[in-house]
Amino acid sequence: MEKKITVLPGDGIGPEVVASAVRVLQVIGKRFNHTFHLGYATIGGAAIDQHNNPLPDETIDMCENSDAILLGAVGGPKWDQNPPELRPEKGLLRIRKHFDLFANLRPVKAFPSLLDASPLKREVAENVDLMIVRELTGGVYFGEPRMRTENGAIDTTVYSKAEVERIVENAFELARLRGGKLCSVDKANVLETSRLWREVVEEKKKDYPDVRVEHNLVDSVAMKLITNPGHYDVVVTENMFGDILSDEASVITGSLGVLPSASIRGDNFGLYEPVHGSAPEIAGQGVANPAATILSVAMMLQYSFGLKEEAAEIERAVSAVFDDGYFTADLARDGGRTLSTNEWTDKVINEIDTSF
Amino acid sequence: MEKKITVLPGDGIGPEVVASAVRVLQVIGKRFNHTFHLGYATIGGAAIDQHNNPLPDETIDMCENSDAILLGAVGGPKWDQNPPELRPEKGLLRIRKHFDLFANLRPVKAFPSLLDASPLKREVAENVDLMIVRELTGGVYFGEPRMRTENGAIDTTVYSKAEVERIVENAFELARLRGGKLCSVDKANVLETSRLWREVVEEKKKDYPDVRVEHNLVDSVAMKLITNPGHYDVVVTENMFGDILSDEASVITGSLGVLPSASIRGDNFGLYEPVHGSAPEIAGQGVANPAATILSVAMMLQYSFGLKEEAAEIERAVSAVFDDGYFTADLARDGGRTLSTNEWTDKVINEIDTSF
Ligand SMILES: CC(C)[C@H](C(=O)O)[C@@H](O)C(=O)O
Ligand SMILES: CC(C)[C@H](C(=O)O)[C@@H](O)C(=O)O
Repeated sequence: MEKKITVLPGDGIGPEVVASAVRVLQVIGKRFNHTFHLGYATIGGAAIDQHNNPLPDETIDMCENSDAILLGAVGGPKWDQNPPELRPEKGLLRIRKHFDLFANLRPVKAFPSLLDASPLKREVAENVDLMIVRELTGGVYFGEPRMRTENGAIDTTVYSKAEVERIVENAFELARLRGGKLCSVDKANVLETSRLWREVVEEKKKDYPDVRVEHNLVDSVAMKLITNPGHYDVVVTENMFGDILSDEASVITGSLGVLPSASIRGDNFGLYEPVHGSAPEIAGQGVANPAATILSVAMMLQYSFGLKEEAAEIERAVSAVFDDGYFTADLARDGGRTLSTNEWTDKVINEIDTSF
Repeated sequence: MEKKITVLPGDGIGPEVVASAVRVLQVIGKRFNHTFHLGYATIGGAAIDQHNNPLPDETIDMCENSDAILLGAVGGPKWDQNPPELRPEKGLLRIRKHFDLFANLRPVKAFPSLLDASPLKREVAENVDLMIVRELTGGVYFGEPRMRTENGAIDTTVYSKAEVERIVENAFELARLRGGKLCSVDKANVLETSRLWREVVEEKKKDYPDVRVEHNLVDSVAMKLITNPGHYDVVVTENMFGDILSDEASVITGSLGVLPSASIRGDNFGLYEPVHGSAPEIAGQGVANPAATILSVAMMLQYSFGLKEEAAEIERAVSAVFDDGYFTADLARDGGRTLSTNEWTDKVINEIDTSF
């Protein structure tokens, strides 16, 4: 297989973790006989510095000619005082919208060897294997009007039925391939958009008799994600609730540094990035944890290229390196060995290479 | 002191836990020489059944002639299929709005003897003592337009500057009386209402040089509330974020059944209710945990009547009964004794009575 990938290293630790992930990707290519052509472009703060634009046209063009995008992270104190249009995260919001990447997939799965780092009791966190499906291009993030008024401000949550349908279908498909359970999250006791959401789920579920569906209120899910995260399989929700709940869920397993994400649309195109941020405070020191970005490459292989075996091989290798007791500084622990970003990546590569 | 209180038992376990709390209130009255006049009225499902209205005029009238309101809980499967206007929670939303109860105070404090029930590791949960201040009468809960459109639906988040100012002031005042720290939560990188919110906090903080202020994004707080809840003192946020975060925070200490709340406005008037719901599945069995409602009475004494010593006495008694190893069924544990709602309330009353 031959694929073109646009790589957007971004800011802070972005370039470091992306470099690691690219090394792993190339090893997978070698081992499984695929060719990955990489093109590099800027986004976020780096793009503001070079082009005075968090998402330059050159970047969009290159992405348009690619099969997938790999992103590091954006943001940092340097740009914190910029006006809204010149903030790094604007690049992120715009690339999502431009490419209509409406489905944000955020898997949360416990690595047994990392559970000590979880704020939750081991027995609560240990069997967690869930996927949050967040609508990413609608709702209050993009709804109009959004503005200051004479004596205050307003934002608008807008959803069309079609927007809800496509994300809900996406979630049903995922649930069918996973554990067969779907939890739809809304605030139907208060919001009109939530009542629409619930109706669409009720309609769609007729097409998925093999999927067990429950509706749950966002406040109640915010509790249950912590008290009983093992209950969940696929969780689908709108953009703002998804932002909050997916970050909340990211702490369950104790290692934000190992969580990948995919932002996809109907076809195979998608953007893959770690859940963690740009961590400017540790940038350039070679200590960042590349696991989340490496696992994001695995998601790319699976969701954009349909390469399931290759994806599984990366996941196996990452897991094995943890089980062998190798960690980056963020996960440093008694009885483990603390490695640099590159050393840890070498371990993963060795795992993949020696298992020919 | 002489005070009039409207009691709204509501649905499910509401009447049981309210009965317990009223007994404790009367004992406090006897011991500290206050007279509490109680009037009973309906709200929620009970009011729908009797008056076809989740908040009947009689109830509003009685509340208007009172100094405070004590509420049990509303809701249950019986009314789940009702149209929106005839749903129990509509009574709750309307009473908040009618009485302009704009500040919802949700303290979360660890009881050491309950920590085993927490999903969090003991060391994460044990020193938690925070208060979420949720704006309760604005934002997307009440903003217009809120409706179905030709091809979808919309909701509107609206805040006037004055609405933000009063809740933010309230939170600053509380922070000053507590640990001197205030975390303001918003989504200023996306929402106009959040940018307004952040500006108001920046303005107001000049009047509270003794309070340390931080701004934090809602997604980030959703993580940190679980990874490091001990970091927080007072947390202030808008209505929808507050709904989610306060429920999330309620699981930290492992005992939703002991968390009280207050919904207040500028003067001393307020509504006090447990955080938990109506738990219809255990209603009428005499096993409900009355602690949250009893502690809500303590909040009433403190916030509406300024009776700090009396409030502290209730808190001390509740804590002592837990420390003595007495629990209701929801908190049943090895080495503890499981009591009925009434037996457990007797223990609290004994604590208060024998300590003359
Ligand atoms: C940076 C911000 C705009 C963004 C969002 O809210 O979507 C981030 O929190 C995320 O979840 O990717
Ligand atoms: C019942 C519901 C409308 C209500 C809310 O969302 O405010 C409840 O969740 C609460 O927090 O008191």
